[in-house]
Amino acid sequence: MANRKNMDHAIHPILRERYSPYAFDNKIIPQNDLCSLFEAARWTASSFNEQPWHFIVASRDDQQDFQRILSCLMPANAQWACEGSTIALGITRKIFSANGKMNRSAEHDLGQATANIVNEAMSRGIYAHQMAGILPDHAQELYAIPQEYMVVCAMVLGYLGDPMRLPPALRERERYPQERHSLHDFVFSDKWGATAPFVIDRSL
Amino acid sequence: MANRKNMDHAIHPILRERYSPYAFDNKIIPQNDLCSLFEAARWTASSFNEQPWHFIVASRDDQQDFQRILSCLMPANAQWACEGSTIALGITRKIFSANGKMNRSAEHDLGQATANIVNEAMSRGIYAHQMAGILPDHAQELYAIPQEYMVVCAMVLGYLGDPMRLPPALRERERYPQERHSLHDFVFSDKWGATAPFVIDRSL
Repeated sequence: MANRKNMDHAIHPILRERYSPYAFDNKIIPQNDLCSLFEAARWTASSFNEQPWHFIVASRDDQQDFQRILSCLMPANAQWACEGSTIALGITRKIFSANGKMNRSAEHDLGQATANIVNEAMSRGIYAHQMAGILPDHAQELYAIPQEYMVVCAMVLGYLGDPMRLPPALRERERYPQERHSLHDFVFSDKWGATAPFVIDRSL
Repeated sequence: MANRKNMDHAIHPILRERYSPYAFDNKIIPQNDLCSLFEAARWTASSFNEQPWHFIVASRDDQQDFQRILSCLMPANAQWACEGSTIALGITRKIFSANGKMNRSAEHDLGQATANIVNEAMSRGIYAHQMAGILPDHAQELYAIPQEYMVVCAMVLGYLGDPMRLPPALRERERYPQERHSLHDFVFSDKWGATAPFVIDRSL
């Protein structure tokens, strides 16, 4: 697949090659790779080293488990996610275990752990497609997740499949260029909206 | 520095070597490296491709800027952060730009972008130390950040310094082993608290 990113600055190949495919091959991810993916999450930084991230994980080699987790995705997502190898729900603990106070970083730190899973996966030729389009209340009940935890997102993990097997609408999305705002729009310095000088200097 | 992680499974060197130092060398980070760090954030995945992340960035070669951003950290953090090369505040947009509705993934997606900055940095020998211990209201006012944005966290970026120059208490923390929960404690399958079979199988 041609790189569909219009990059302004060089970045590491793992980050450069990442995208969120719709077309997955239904090959199984070996157990040792799965362990390494969650080991990558494990060593993420977190506020007060709380490690608020938790994951519920199901692979297609256990179809009962796999159908259960698929039922937690919005139907439009389950439609293509069902071709993935492994699906994980991302869950975070809203309070600190030490004192029960609200953890302002709970979702942020889950996001970091998830990014590390995605990056470890890419280093192994495994792609991830994340989604916020889930049914969190259903998941909370189905898996008996205590109320102090929040189901935030899901991700499909697997190997690249043949886009020609996708429904036409998704097949087209698989070809879109990946679009992003410019660094000018989100890297500021002395006040809000003022692009940082190093971005301006390197854009001349 | 000896690796202070007790790992159960192999992970990519960028993730394996990462830690959050207190001792920084005050060398300047070249502009092209800084651009690549934020380019890594740019290509992060986000819910509806909203890209809610924003950063305010200051480097020590502009001391006025640098002192301003230091004033947004809790004093205990500013004490060692002042030795870093560059400091960034992580800010996220709480609502979707398309329809003004709340973005449930805003903090999560900022976390992912920040993890990608940290990983790009590590690939260039630049270390990051993140913190939630900031003064968000002060930052919001100081930089005139609109109310629909939330200041979530900060990170210090720089090169490793000499731990012997740290105050004794921080010097000790720099030597602690990095501790994490086991995969058994946060990777579940068919119900909450039940460790996923692939974790159990690979632990025998």
